[in-house]
Amino acid sequence: MNAGSTAQTIRNRLRHCDLPCGIYDPEQARIEAESCYKTIEKYNSSSDEHFRARAILVKEERAELAKHHIDVLWSDYFKPEHVQKHPEITELAGTPRSRPRR
Amino acid sequence: MNAGSTAQTIRNRLRHCDLPCGIYDPEQARIEAESCYKTIEKYNSSSDEHFRARAILVKEERAELAKHHIDVLWSDYFKPEHVQKHPEITELAGTPRSRPRR
Amino acid sequence: MNAGSTAQTIRNRLRHCDLPCGIYDPEQARIEAESCYKTIEKYNSSSDEHFRARAILVKEERAELAKHHIDVLWSDYFKPEHVQKHPEITELAGTPRSRPRR
Amino acid sequence: MNAGSTAQTIRNRLRHCDLPCGIYDPEQARIEAESCYKTIEKYNSSSDEHFRARAILVKEERAELAKHHIDVLWSDYFKPEHVQKHPEITELAGTPRSRPRR
Amino acid sequence: MNAGSTAQTIRNRLRHCDLPCGIYDPEQARIEAESCYKTIEKYNSSSDEHFRARAILVKEERAELAKHHIDVLWSDYFKPEHVQKHPEITELAGTPRSRPRR
Amino acid sequence: MNAGSTAQTIRNRLRHCDLPCGIYDPEQARIEAESCYKTIEKYNSSSDEHFRARAILVKEERAELAKHHIDVLWSDYFKPEHVQKHPEITELAGTPRSRPRR
Repeated sequence: MNAGSTAQTIRNRLRHCDLPCGIYDPEQARIEAESCYKTIEKYNSSSDEHFRARAILVKEERAELAKHHIDVLWSDYFKPEHVQKHPEITELAGTPRSRPRR
Repeated sequence: MNAGSTAQTIRNRLRHCDLPCGIYDPEQARIEAESCYKTIEKYNSSSDEHFRARAILVKEERAELAKHHIDVLWSDYFKPEHVQKHPEITELAGTPRSRPRR
Repeated sequence: MNAGSTAQTIRNRLRHCDLPCGIYDPEQARIEAESCYKTIEKYNSSSDEHFRARAILVKEERAELAKHHIDVLWSDYFKPEHVQKHPEITELAGTPRSRPRR
Repeated sequence: MNAGSTAQTIRNRLRHCDLPCGIYDPEQARIEAESCYKTIEKYNSSSDEHFRARAILVKEERAELAKHHIDVLWSDYFKPEHVQKHPEITELAGTPRSRPRR
Repeated sequence: MNAGSTAQTIRNRLRHCDLPCGIYDPEQARIEAESCYKTIEKYNSSSDEHFRARAILVKEERAELAKHHIDVLWSDYFKPEHVQKHPEITELAGTPRSRPRR
Repeated sequence: MNAGSTAQTIRNRLRHCDLPCGIYDPEQARIEAESCYKTIEKYNSSSDEHFRARAILVKEERAELAKHHIDVLWSDYFKPEHVQKHPEITELAGTPRSRPRR
């Protein structure tokens, strides 16, 4: 599979991988992000080894879901006119442009 | 949670959600994309209702994995210098800029 | 494991399985339910075999998530005073009491 | 979506979300619950940080599965006559009625 | 990573990836296999396109779980003396030896 | 379900559970195994409790994926002639024959 067909593959995925159902709601990411915050607070205020390990588990899982919901908005919802009007979207969604060089 | 704290949340996720282990390999996305292609070929050359339904299941699952691997590369791997050198990355990864208006 | 210890097991699960983070939001179930509705509409208005199969996949997945979010509310959030004030919760959550005999 | 349509949504989910295949077996919950117990025992008898962290991971995962299997029995299997004959089911399944006020 | 280190990797996975909790129960595979059978029966006796698509979904998911439970028994439970006493295990678990040439 | 029908069940699963798409690539297992190694290195060189807990989470998840990819190769790809030519496959894949008695 050469570079050209890979490009084709990636373009195709945009057309066939999501139905899409058309429902996009930032509440999903917001709820998971709040769950992370609460979990971190509970982690910080506990000294129980078992509880703290569970809090990290829950927080990581919720953070994955928050990332997933943001990725869906970024990949499927935002259109060029959104980015023009709210250029901070590009930075918020964690694109290459917004990352410090490592 | 106001807009400022949401922005903070989203920035934070970049720092705390991935270890990261540092292993990024485009083979993962390539393998799943090839699996999609093969599955679509088998779907097209079968007339068995059961087989075709299973092919769609497998193809959708593999397409999700391909998307996931591309999202990881996009969100965690590429740095500004990659995008400068290969500006087609932005289009290939399915960003708002590359989507036709709906 | 006798009946007594099974009862103990089940009671224990209430104490140890959820952190809990304390975030409960009916929006999660509402969003997935709306996604089901939209997907069913799109299924009904399409005659493409492939699209229809994908719509069923998406709808089933979303319905599972809606059920999951309702189960969490039912199992972890509602307290006796909620049920006293809104007795319809018991029926809505799909408890044995609300099921017709099969 | 108003309260009426939400109620309708939730009622609908009872009809369309499970096939159901008709196989219900309490062994599934029992096996996962036993796995939790064994894992907790091994956690308690080890002083290795890495092993203990892994035990918590395994135990949480197994507890989730135990909860899932109990939720399926509760939501899909038990009928009013079961609850009449074994009223302790309601308490065991962790319903609002059985939870202490928080 | 050369062949030697790959072999080492694979050997290591035997030591570090499972706790193990020590609970192995063939009921898990048996229940999922029965669920597949019942689902196939229901698929065969229905002429509703939507129901049939859902039956395939459920059957595939359950078959995956049956395979998973058999893989766990095969990879983690059976010891050389089991295979000596019941040589059919090797065939039943779907090893290379039991597959017809393709 | 007697032993005979269980055998039949297990044989059936070989025929109906995978499409298969025909794509098998050892890179998938290799990438996950490398990720485990890197993660273990990072775990060993950090003294941060939170980071170490996250490293264990990531490593376990990646090890599960490595195991899954090896299981797929073992169950679906290797044919008798592979095992004849490379008898070490049987040992590497973690079969009963390769396990020390417990």
